[in-house]
Amino acid sequence: MVKSQGEQTMKAFGWAARDSSGVLSPFHFSRRETGAKDVVFRVLYCGICHTDLHMVKNEWGMSIYPLVPGHEIVGVVTQIGNKVEKIKVGDKVGVGYMVGSCGSCDNCDDDLENYCPKMIPTCSAIDHDGTATRGGFSDIMVAHEQFIVHIPDKLPLDATAPLLCAGITVYSPLKHFGLDKPGTHVGIVGLGGLGHVAVKFAKAMGAKVTVISTSANKKEEAIEHLGADSFLVSRDQDQMQAAMSTMDGIIDTVSAVHSLGPLIGLLKSQGKLIMVGAPDKPLELPVFPLIMGRKIVAGSCTGGIKETQEMIDFAAKHNITSLIEVIPIDYVNIALNRLVKGDVRYRFVIDVGNTLKPSS
Amino acid sequence: MVKSQGEQTMKAFGWAARDSSGVLSPFHFSRRETGAKDVVFRVLYCGICHTDLHMVKNEWGMSIYPLVPGHEIVGVVTQIGNKVEKIKVGDKVGVGYMVGSCGSCDNCDDDLENYCPKMIPTCSAIDHDGTATRGGFSDIMVAHEQFIVHIPDKLPLDATAPLLCAGITVYSPLKHFGLDKPGTHVGIVGLGGLGHVAVKFAKAMGAKVTVISTSANKKEEAIEHLGADSFLVSRDQDQMQAAMSTMDGIIDTVSAVHSLGPLIGLLKSQGKLIMVGAPDKPLELPVFPLIMGRKIVAGSCTGGIKETQEMIDFAAKHNITSLIEVIPIDYVNIALNRLVKGDVRYRFVIDVGNTLKPSS
Repeated sequence: MVKSQGEQTMKAFGWAARDSSGVLSPFHFSRRETGAKDVVFRVLYCGICHTDLHMVKNEWGMSIYPLVPGHEIVGVVTQIGNKVEKIKVGDKVGVGYMVGSCGSCDNCDDDLENYCPKMIPTCSAIDHDGTATRGGFSDIMVAHEQFIVHIPDKLPLDATAPLLCAGITVYSPLKHFGLDKPGTHVGIVGLGGLGHVAVKFAKAMGAKVTVISTSANKKEEAIEHLGADSFLVSRDQDQMQAAMSTMDGIIDTVSAVHSLGPLIGLLKSQGKLIMVGAPDKPLELPVFPLIMGRKIVAGSCTGGIKETQEMIDFAAKHNITSLIEVIPIDYVNIALNRLVKGDVRYRFVIDVGNTLKPSS
Repeated sequence: MVKSQGEQTMKAFGWAARDSSGVLSPFHFSRRETGAKDVVFRVLYCGICHTDLHMVKNEWGMSIYPLVPGHEIVGVVTQIGNKVEKIKVGDKVGVGYMVGSCGSCDNCDDDLENYCPKMIPTCSAIDHDGTATRGGFSDIMVAHEQFIVHIPDKLPLDATAPLLCAGITVYSPLKHFGLDKPGTHVGIVGLGGLGHVAVKFAKAMGAKVTVISTSANKKEEAIEHLGADSFLVSRDQDQMQAAMSTMDGIIDTVSAVHSLGPLIGLLKSQGKLIMVGAPDKPLELPVFPLIMGRKIVAGSCTGGIKETQEMIDFAAKHNITSLIEVIPIDYVNIALNRLVKGDVRYRFVIDVGNTLKPSS
């Protein structure tokens, strides 16, 4: 049940999808009045993630319309509730994939709100007050301070926005699965929004990084611009054969259906293949090679807020940002269509602050 | 290349398969003379593992005939090399899945000889001297002391033999993947040779154990005789639904093709599904539920020698043995056929010492 907002609300304006056509258009709505632990911020930039694409088209069957997408949101704080402790007006802040969780389960206790069964996504979910959550393709955001991340001054806001989802999505498994040790050999499958920041994070952690891609023409980009150590064309069996049993771990960012066997073959014994892209159909898993090397296939979904702050601070320290194409809000539908085709290098970021103007 | 034995050999007698019909018959052969670090023992009992079935029929395409199966071997030491340190004549000892490894790789250094790329299986592999290894369906064994395990006096030799493969195969992943903590909820899929000892080990470690089986008629056995806490019929969707997200880990012993999705659903977030049975075709892996709970699907293959000794000592402390059907050697072909049908409760063990007599 989606409730209407109560009387205590503030006006907001953004772009929303009205149905599963996924076409966005200007949309006036309201956000809740600032609660005691709430932070209000003016949105300046918002990245466009593949998840936004799935959600505006209701491809996962859970969309609530009108749907304001966007969960890679950065901006400047304009107002805080009277019990907010860690944020002040004027701070540069961000909100990522989620704005709420139960606060009392084992995962919440372990700073893993992202795995809380009652985790509340930033877009198109039911918030604690019964209203639908609405994302960053809008002029203002309101969120509980627990789900607000500080953005250090040295990071550019536009190119930092995608780190709030793409960044933490690859940073968290690199850390959790022990692939952050100097000398570790890490494979990154797919050089898109997630993959290109995965290369940067893994390199900054001291790993040897090999990009694995179907597109041979991404080799120069991977090595010259992103700093990867080597490049494998996944369709080249000789290259793949020569790299067998050489990797400690692989971050697989590909959400299209693809073969796991060749990737498992690249792993040393006890190697870990971590899936962060979610194919919509089951993949074929050859079990024998898993058994013979005590190998692991795992999944990982974003990260907790504490770890997201750690990731942003690490990015600031190592000058890691996303490669982006900044667009005005009225280009968003074209951008979504280009994203379907993978035609972006590597992340669209909407210049919300300068281009989102109410028409009335 | 399989070399012939050199001049310095000792006579041995056993039963061997001559071709992929898999039919065993009496076979005279020779074993190497006792090397400086070798242990010779008279075989008393040898378990029959599913792997023996695959190997005698060349189902994995790597069989060397004549093939003497058997890698769950126990007996009494009759002779030792002049540099053997940890074993003496008269000791009760065992040999499991392997008799050699490279000794210098990372896995060997970490007591994980079982994952050494040059690990030498006990049956039908090429040994360091170029001869074919031959297993425990025979009167004597010769092995390097590094691959010999002590059997404590309090353990009955016949019911202990299967622990050398089935036992370590389930003990190792319970330990390695942290499922050995009191209060952990562990699922065991399949109640056969591996599954029934997995229940015993997990219970002795303090876990809450749920057996998951297609056969409802195994419930009484699982709970009354093996000590499991609960039982799930995997085909009963209501039972499976009610148990969703309750398990910390699952040991999956089933080697037939089966669905992983329902098992992944039984796991809590960050739960681990460990495959120790090896289906010969790829299984369907739904990736989304792995991602949403940072869950893991892993494989595990027997264990290192140090851990095998630890497992045997743990079994002695907690009175863990296999449920067995002891058979004479001349019943072995019938036993193999019954094993194909799963008609054994739960492991055949050949009484080698009392029933294997050279016909000439």
